[in-house]
Amino acid sequence: MQDSNRKRFSRRSFLQTTAMAGGGLAASSLLAAGQASGAEKGELASGAVILFQGDSITDAGRDKKGGAPNNTQGLGRGYPNLIGGALLADYPDKKLTVYNRGISGNKVPDLAARWQPDAIDLKPNILSILIGVNDIWHKLSGRYDGTVADYETGYRQLLQQTLEKLPGVRLVICEPFVLRCGAVNDDWFPEFDQRRAAANKLAEEFKLDRVPFQTVFDEAVKLAPPEYWAGDGVHPTLAGHSLMAKTWREGGGI
Amino acid sequence: MQDSNRKRFSRRSFLQTTAMAGGGLAASSLLAAGQASGAEKGELASGAVILFQGDSITDAGRDKKGGAPNNTQGLGRGYPNLIGGALLADYPDKKLTVYNRGISGNKVPDLAARWQPDAIDLKPNILSILIGVNDIWHKLSGRYDGTVADYETGYRQLLQQTLEKLPGVRLVICEPFVLRCGAVNDDWFPEFDQRRAAANKLAEEFKLDRVPFQTVFDEAVKLAPPEYWAGDGVHPTLAGHSLMAKTWREGGGI
Repeated sequence: MQDSNRKRFSRRSFLQTTAMAGGGLAASSLLAAGQASGAEKGELASGAVILFQGDSITDAGRDKKGGAPNNTQGLGRGYPNLIGGALLADYPDKKLTVYNRGISGNKVPDLAARWQPDAIDLKPNILSILIGVNDIWHKLSGRYDGTVADYETGYRQLLQQTLEKLPGVRLVICEPFVLRCGAVNDDWFPEFDQRRAAANKLAEEFKLDRVPFQTVFDEAVKLAPPEYWAGDGVHPTLAGHSLMAKTWREGGGI
Repeated sequence: MQDSNRKRFSRRSFLQTTAMAGGGLAASSLLAAGQASGAEKGELASGAVILFQGDSITDAGRDKKGGAPNNTQGLGRGYPNLIGGALLADYPDKKLTVYNRGISGNKVPDLAARWQPDAIDLKPNILSILIGVNDIWHKLSGRYDGTVADYETGYRQLLQQTLEKLPGVRLVICEPFVLRCGAVNDDWFPEFDQRRAAANKLAEEFKLDRVPFQTVFDEAVKLAPPEYWAGDGVHPTLAGHSLMAKTWREGGGI
């Protein structure tokens, strides 16, 4: 599956897809494959709940007090808002509910600590997770000492627990990514790649869809400098979030 | 041209396009036809400037003090941000600059008063205008007395002035629209439709691209209630702004 992903997001493919507005044909594949709530393949279930989980990249300045689902105040200014908006416009008759529960600074153990109220209790049909940057960043800055193995073990427990409690859920593993600029220097490697590989490995282990963000950004920096996509190498610009949204939908959530 | 637009945005067409992520094939037609800066047909000029002008629907909470182009702070949470982000992700090698200069409460005379600094001086290659709702709303509330003829005359002068000062500009006329809910009651009609017709007439008179928002929202309310698209009948929700962004790109700016 990883090989075919790499193929799908080859430079050629990237250039082709960038000529499109926002997904087109391939966009339907995520939803086509969605089997949430027992929906038939090819259908997005009526009343489906879509939840984005993660750290500051997902949080993206959302209003954690007054923010409701399905609006920008609650979804933030990042990829969950862009994807959520597009889904709400594309499927107005489906009565979708789109939540963002990303929180800045979160690592895997932070997700685990709030998983019941912030993921399980929302009963998502599609649950997209992007986590991993702070697991290494906070370690580099001396605020955390979790290893790559801790990341993998903790992430695996989170996925197991989720699949047990929500047997019909469609999990989407977003590949952690960084760009080589701003706060991201050589100290991040090779450990960042090891953590990225762990996330990809878990997607394969559980046969989950995976969104190959690093692959896409590696291609994107051939067309515009890293700062164009993420000023500090971690937090995407509007261009970066828009590319993420497009990738998430095009890649079929893979 | 209007006939073919109606045909293009028929219910059948709307249902077809809503199954897509955000434009796909047709999306390229706006840019394909862009002849700004002497770019060849089929090309978006390198360094192109795209400007969105209008009232609160365009403003959408943008930061008017610190907001820069090309980011959500400066572009707001509405359709200019969604379109701008998608263009920045789709054309990373074009060095685009995307501005929003919409201001809440604006009518045609307000645009005219600030047109030189807020439109001409920015030297846009593509200039998208959405104006007209306040021209009637403020009249209904007794704060303004401009007629339909005033709207048409003032709008025509604005377009003439723009084409004289920026002979290479590509103007995109966005059709004013309302939904039948919230603040929008029978008092708005038939005058709102007359103003809408005036905007459409000007697009035809000057051979400009037109985005048929009212047509698209008239179809959209067959799939979800008006409040789903615009709570007060005027200001779009995230779903509404996302549908606008998709329409703007799909319709080729027509």
